[in-house]
Amino acid sequence: MAEPGLLDEFLTRVARVGRGRGPARDPLELCSELLGDKGEVSGLVAALDILEGIEALDREDFLRFCQGLAAWFGVDKVAVEAAIATYHKTGDARVLHEAAEPRSQELIRRINRAPGTTARLVALRARLIDLTRTHPDLKGVDRDFLHLFSSWFNRGFLELRHVDWSSPASALEKIISYEAVHEISGWDDLRQRVADPDRRLSAFFHPAMPGEPLIFVEVALMAEIPGAIGDIIAVKRDPVDPEAAKVAVFYSILNCQKGLRGISFGNFLIKQVVSELQRELPGLSTFVTRSPVPDLRRRADAKGIEAPGIAGLENAWGSWPIPSMI
Amino acid sequence: MAEPGLLDEFLTRVARVGRGRGPARDPLELCSELLGDKGEVSGLVAALDILEGIEALDREDFLRFCQGLAAWFGVDKVAVEAAIATYHKTGDARVLHEAAEPRSQELIRRINRAPGTTARLVALRARLIDLTRTHPDLKGVDRDFLHLFSSWFNRGFLELRHVDWSSPASALEKIISYEAVHEISGWDDLRQRVADPDRRLSAFFHPAMPGEPLIFVEVALMAEIPGAIGDIIAVKRDPVDPEAAKVAVFYSILNCQKGLRGISFGNFLIKQVVSELQRELPGLSTFVTRSPVPDLRRRADAKGIEAPGIAGLENAWGSWPIPSMI
Amino acid sequence: MAEPGLLDEFLTRVARVGRGRGPARDPLELCSELLGDKGEVSGLVAALDILEGIEALDREDFLRFCQGLAAWFGVDKVAVEAAIATYHKTGDARVLHEAAEPRSQELIRRINRAPGTTARLVALRARLIDLTRTHPDLKGVDRDFLHLFSSWFNRGFLELRHVDWSSPASALEKIISYEAVHEISGWDDLRQRVADPDRRLSAFFHPAMPGEPLIFVEVALMAEIPGAIGDIIAVKRDPVDPEAAKVAVFYSILNCQKGLRGISFGNFLIKQVVSELQRELPGLSTFVTRSPVPDLRRRADAKGIEAPGIAGLENAWGSWPIPSMI
Amino acid sequence: MAEPGLLDEFLTRVARVGRGRGPARDPLELCSELLGDKGEVSGLVAALDILEGIEALDREDFLRFCQGLAAWFGVDKVAVEAAIATYHKTGDARVLHEAAEPRSQELIRRINRAPGTTARLVALRARLIDLTRTHPDLKGVDRDFLHLFSSWFNRGFLELRHVDWSSPASALEKIISYEAVHEISGWDDLRQRVADPDRRLSAFFHPAMPGEPLIFVEVALMAEIPGAIGDIIAVKRDPVDPEAAKVAVFYSILNCQKGLRGISFGNFLIKQVVSELQRELPGLSTFVTRSPVPDLRRRADAKGIEAPGIAGLENAWGSWPIPSMI
Repeated sequence: MAEPGLLDEFLTRVARVGRGRGPARDPLELCSELLGDKGEVSGLVAALDILEGIEALDREDFLRFCQGLAAWFGVDKVAVEAAIATYHKTGDARVLHEAAEPRSQELIRRINRAPGTTARLVALRARLIDLTRTHPDLKGVDRDFLHLFSSWFNRGFLELRHVDWSSPASALEKIISYEAVHEISGWDDLRQRVADPDRRLSAFFHPAMPGEPLIFVEVALMAEIPGAIGDIIAVKRDPVDPEAAKVAVFYSILNCQKGLRGISFGNFLIKQVVSELQRELPGLSTFVTRSPVPDLRRRADAKGIEAPGIAGLENAWGSWPIPSMI
Repeated sequence: MAEPGLLDEFLTRVARVGRGRGPARDPLELCSELLGDKGEVSGLVAALDILEGIEALDREDFLRFCQGLAAWFGVDKVAVEAAIATYHKTGDARVLHEAAEPRSQELIRRINRAPGTTARLVALRARLIDLTRTHPDLKGVDRDFLHLFSSWFNRGFLELRHVDWSSPASALEKIISYEAVHEISGWDDLRQRVADPDRRLSAFFHPAMPGEPLIFVEVALMAEIPGAIGDIIAVKRDPVDPEAAKVAVFYSILNCQKGLRGISFGNFLIKQVVSELQRELPGLSTFVTRSPVPDLRRRADAKGIEAPGIAGLENAWGSWPIPSMI
Repeated sequence: MAEPGLLDEFLTRVARVGRGRGPARDPLELCSELLGDKGEVSGLVAALDILEGIEALDREDFLRFCQGLAAWFGVDKVAVEAAIATYHKTGDARVLHEAAEPRSQELIRRINRAPGTTARLVALRARLIDLTRTHPDLKGVDRDFLHLFSSWFNRGFLELRHVDWSSPASALEKIISYEAVHEISGWDDLRQRVADPDRRLSAFFHPAMPGEPLIFVEVALMAEIPGAIGDIIAVKRDPVDPEAAKVAVFYSILNCQKGLRGISFGNFLIKQVVSELQRELPGLSTFVTRSPVPDLRRRADAKGIEAPGIAGLENAWGSWPIPSMI
Repeated sequence: MAEPGLLDEFLTRVARVGRGRGPARDPLELCSELLGDKGEVSGLVAALDILEGIEALDREDFLRFCQGLAAWFGVDKVAVEAAIATYHKTGDARVLHEAAEPRSQELIRRINRAPGTTARLVALRARLIDLTRTHPDLKGVDRDFLHLFSSWFNRGFLELRHVDWSSPASALEKIISYEAVHEISGWDDLRQRVADPDRRLSAFFHPAMPGEPLIFVEVALMAEIPGAIGDIIAVKRDPVDPEAAKVAVFYSILNCQKGLRGISFGNFLIKQVVSELQRELPGLSTFVTRSPVPDLRRRADAKGIEAPGIAGLENAWGSWPIPSMI
């Protein structure tokens, strides 16, 4: 039913040829053209050119590019004033909402139209986040990315996948490289975390970034609440029969995409995994984590229940129940 | 790698049980709770309840619901005034952009978090569009849907698939039911449009609506430009060897989702198909359609080229070249 | 992980080119070369040439070819006598078994080495079976095919697949064309047999013939034993909730491959389907067949198709329980 | 389209329950029942019982079992004599061929009918091969396995798959464990053999053993014929652009299944890979092997693994061209 990728290849090739014809052009200038252009398809080539141009910039030039975005791709001030007037007259804020949208947002949407660019835009924001530490004036542009990504990475578009020993090595290699909480020392270590019947590793993926986990959580099925993390991540141990397990320990959770910072996936992931484990293994009676999340704790406190948590925040200590979810 | 659907089932079940416990509640009231709720996962159940509640409304009650959305899920006027002041002080419109976003948009985003709801939201907008004819005051709410759908159905998230005789019968059945331009009279008719080597049917799909084509285009590979549409859609004819074909006739194009009205897929689809055909069959020298699209014609005129077109607009007559795409 | 089909294409091409170089050669002569040949891969091309040569023969020439197989591809009589002597001396029959194997069997094995030939060999045997009616002297060659096919189509190599409305149209079209017991009148008729929740159609497939069902069975889930077949195959009816069904009626079963005559699939298929239904729907308490095997046989005979028996009830009439399977 | 595995599970469960009911029974006795049994499906449970029984035997009991097979599952001597007489009368050896087939062959066929048993039968033959060294009287039974496996693992049933970094980790792990020629020291070593664009690893698989490679070959694409094997398997090196490569070096080939000894896959595999490389990369002009078959054999022998020959160059030393294949 499919013969994918032809356009992608074609466009990439065209883009390359195009660049071969003359000196590289300023990405900002190309961005301006892309926004002005009404030709939808020629925009795809422009989008690829822009991305490739930006990716080739060194830190200093990238900074200049972002500052250019902030300076020149804001709103049309005359239009905003007109929209404010309309709003005051009609009370309908939609015209104002649209007029007040920085043009940088539409630019990002147009770049995303070209095939395979979503992951590259996410990577680009990761670089931008680094810059905002020293250049807080770029936080506005960063919010543009965040606003769009929040919509694109809506929970309804995410796919839960269980990563195991039959998963592609390339995906597992990414897990190894991302794992930061309880470091995975290599393939043997990873193997016991995904191949043993009493270990689970589940992740959210987005269809536009098929090989890239967004977030993953690691679970150990155990007979009782463990005394120490070493009980869980020991390479040599006797696996527990999942049917006989009483406790599910969520011992690590990790956001993989720095460029998606600010979008919350963790709660959705943990609770979906809890829900699936409850169905699959009715013998499980306790769901714990080693370390409560501050935010989760605050919210739980507000409801008068014991602090839940997710692993990964090493300041906390102790096993905490995950509250029933629905 | 996957054990999907468990949460979905679970939630649906929970939702059903929940409803069983008491009288059905007003969807608007539930919407309000969903927006106020900070518990992300309990929101999934609420979202499913809301959708089911809305879908069960008859025309009159649905009208009342939409009017309620328009009336009560707008902006926080105090916050907008404060944002206008901030904008005037700082010149950064982002605070204003966010304050001026109607709460109905966030509501739609939250409903979409629950699994499998995107298609249902699209169907809901189709009903809303019908209402706007007699109730233009609902056009604002409709714009909220359009604004979000434009972002969610960004070209970069669409998948091109070639529909042929090895496609699922359920997908082909949908094509039969959607075809409106040159009506497909049944399976035999469809067969010659997708199974013969000189016929192609290509469609865009969205990952969140995997069985639902968004738009499809039908192409006939021919030795020469046909004199009449009957030459193309005759059930009995000798297929042309694709390698020997000179002309690709785009004889039908159809948007399948009324709920996505206002989002343009046609140009992207046609030109991607043109691009793939050019690569696959270098012998093709002419790409034509029976009928120019007004918009395309206008744009082509502006560039001083002959009017291109896409089929489906029966007022036009004549075969028009599709301009080279890049 | 795969880039299949390249060799296939290459070989097919080479075979074509080869044939273009000179006059077509006698398939029997090529068979003889193939058996003598030590070069394994050049044998693949020869195998494809042989098959194509045989397929192009008209009835009379095909008869002559089969008679040639019978006459010239038997055993080495000197070797058989020597093996008989060895057997009498040692008591080990294996040397005798091997010496008494007609060379036609090794020939068929070598033809099967080329990609995609299994289905073509099965089709070839279907033609041979037709000849054996008037030429019983060919029954020996037919037994060679049967002997090998019995081994190749061992139950352990078959795959059960459930055909439903999401199956490829090309597969469903084959079901329509094969159905001979209770004729399927077209797509609407088929739809109610595979798309409704209270109807099942299950088939065995072989990995070397991926698009070709070997045998399929149709099952209706019902509230009670039906009085007449019309109750089952009516296009307009209210589907029964599968969870509430009490009776599973196996109302049609059909062997699809004439060339596999003599190999029994029916019992394995029926009982595997019974077993799966028992697990999936514990409410089912009765498994019956209208198994009018005589009637079935009469209708099938009229079409020249082999009628399989159902569950050892070959001489029964009426609705009969399918005996418990294990 | 599929809901597989239900029967498998069911049968396995039944088999377990069955065994629970009484003392384990002698596998030979069960074998005898299986051959006598007319009930095809009850045979599936018996087959699983037999296999499990055999697999649990220690070396001594397994030896006794094999000797029992050799002694009691031969031919019906009266029937053989009758078939010899028939042969002498009619000249048709087929009756003789069938009568002279040891019943152990039919036994193996019947065991194979149960789902998932092919790989277990192959493993069983591997144990049998070990015994034949010290017990040459078991070579007859071994020939029964070989005879059937040669038919079942016919080239036409094999699937070529390219193993790369997107292959399941479980498959890659098997490659690591099998590699004996130029030992793979771990995942990093493997990575450069399958993930780099100038390295290829291709294998034959059988549909009934989907996760088990039968044989694989490793190829390096290079600018020129390498001076030493170290040039190929160095972990740190600059990959060559495949489009610019001139030479394909087949630097390792390995049979993975000891239980398939005596069935030749190597030539088919190498020449199919050559053929595909020729099509994909027309710039390749030289196909060589270091084929140190003697050395290879020595190292493989040391590990008790069968060393395959490469392309008919069994006695060669150094870099040799692979002869053109067709």
